[in-house]
Amino acid sequence: MSPATRWDADTLLALHELHADYAAALDARELERWPGFFTEACSYRLQSRENFDRGLPLCILAFDSRGMLQDRVYGAKETIYHDPYVQRHVGGLPRLLARESDALVTETSVLIVRTKRDAMPEILLAGRYLDRVVPTSEGLRFAQRWLIFDNDLIANSIVDPA
Amino acid sequence: MSPATRWDADTLLALHELHADYAAALDARELERWPGFFTEACSYRLQSRENFDRGLPLCILAFDSRGMLQDRVYGAKETIYHDPYVQRHVGGLPRLLARESDALVTETSVLIVRTKRDAMPEILLAGRYLDRVVPTSEGLRFAQRWLIFDNDLIANSIVDPA
Amino acid sequence: MSPATRWDADTLLALHELHADYAAALDARELERWPGFFTEACSYRLQSRENFDRGLPLCILAFDSRGMLQDRVYGAKETIYHDPYVQRHVGGLPRLLARESDALVTETSVLIVRTKRDAMPEILLAGRYLDRVVPTSEGLRFAQRWLIFDNDLIANSIVDPA
Repeated sequence: MSPATRWDADTLLALHELHADYAAALDARELERWPGFFTEACSYRLQSRENFDRGLPLCILAFDSRGMLQDRVYGAKETIYHDPYVQRHVGGLPRLLARESDALVTETSVLIVRTKRDAMPEILLAGRYLDRVVPTSEGLRFAQRWLIFDNDLIANSIVDPA
Repeated sequence: MSPATRWDADTLLALHELHADYAAALDARELERWPGFFTEACSYRLQSRENFDRGLPLCILAFDSRGMLQDRVYGAKETIYHDPYVQRHVGGLPRLLARESDALVTETSVLIVRTKRDAMPEILLAGRYLDRVVPTSEGLRFAQRWLIFDNDLIANSIVDPA
Repeated sequence: MSPATRWDADTLLALHELHADYAAALDARELERWPGFFTEACSYRLQSRENFDRGLPLCILAFDSRGMLQDRVYGAKETIYHDPYVQRHVGGLPRLLARESDALVTETSVLIVRTKRDAMPEILLAGRYLDRVVPTSEGLRFAQRWLIFDNDLIANSIVDPA
């Protein structure tokens, strides 16, 4: 592995904090915090591995700006009628794919467990984040966060961002 | 995020070792090691997220001293008749919520997978630890470890500490 | 815990990169990369916890050289007819058991989630890696990687290395 794709401890710690805070916001269902993890222009996608690997464009969710993320939060909290559930993100530390002049490109495996009332936890999504993280005046932010999930079958629907 | 809630590498490493050793003791069913991870006066709770969020007092387990933890270990090993199972803790690195003069307050997501004989693994608990960790002459110890679990439904019963 | 079994940040980072790269290769089904994570003479085992704890020799897989690993890759990719699936490794950071003059002995919990077409993800294996990692001119490599899994029951068969 080339030196360009080795972690230093400070960078990995900063990225760990970003990932952990992102997961905590969603797991606590503080959805209004979600758009703030992204840059103003950004790319968020939730796409099946099958479509990603074949280069097919269809995604479950695909947003290109913080405004679109805010719109989704409004939808998830105010307009979609669904069986309530909570999420739990469990994942590893990121793997550094490339260190660009202004960005870190990383891949991170994740399991998202969903729990409904009076039901056992179940794996909603198994997959990996493909991220492009950039420094901003407010700290590290996602310029890209694509969640590519292994399971082309989704149990019911995805309401909250993942 | 304020500097007060940023990790330094040494502290995170020390906390990782504490978490990993705690999980390894329980996963190997070395329950007699469990009380030693806590301070003499301590707070251990296993509580559903629903009760925690509403401020309700009911817990599955709630102990206030190392002696009570030792009593539970005796119960789990010597008195409770149950279908045998083993645990597997998988979790992330802790998220630092506050750095007090004498303690670290952290939150850490965790999945606990239970496996019985001749059965597939299943998710027993999905949740998060809310910890207060203090330095002692024997190393870092839990003054508080609350496991708040998302699933208000428990498959059968919880016997071993989690 | 003795100083001999404390992590330093650089060593833990290097080991994290090895683990993450290993998992990524298998999860992307780049099986031809798998033997390269091991030393020429090596020990790879996939064994149930029940057999491991009782000192019984039977393993699901047991290989003693990189050549045997290459043979298994050929078998998995070219000769075994099976229902397609993908893997997702999610695990924690390693726990350092011993630091020998030429090797690190570690234990790392892992969940391996399997996803088949048109099916929900399921936990294929819950267990822990028992590793012996050595430095080589090509970087850190596994002289030993034993995956001891809690579930003595396997759903169908294990085809790909885990």
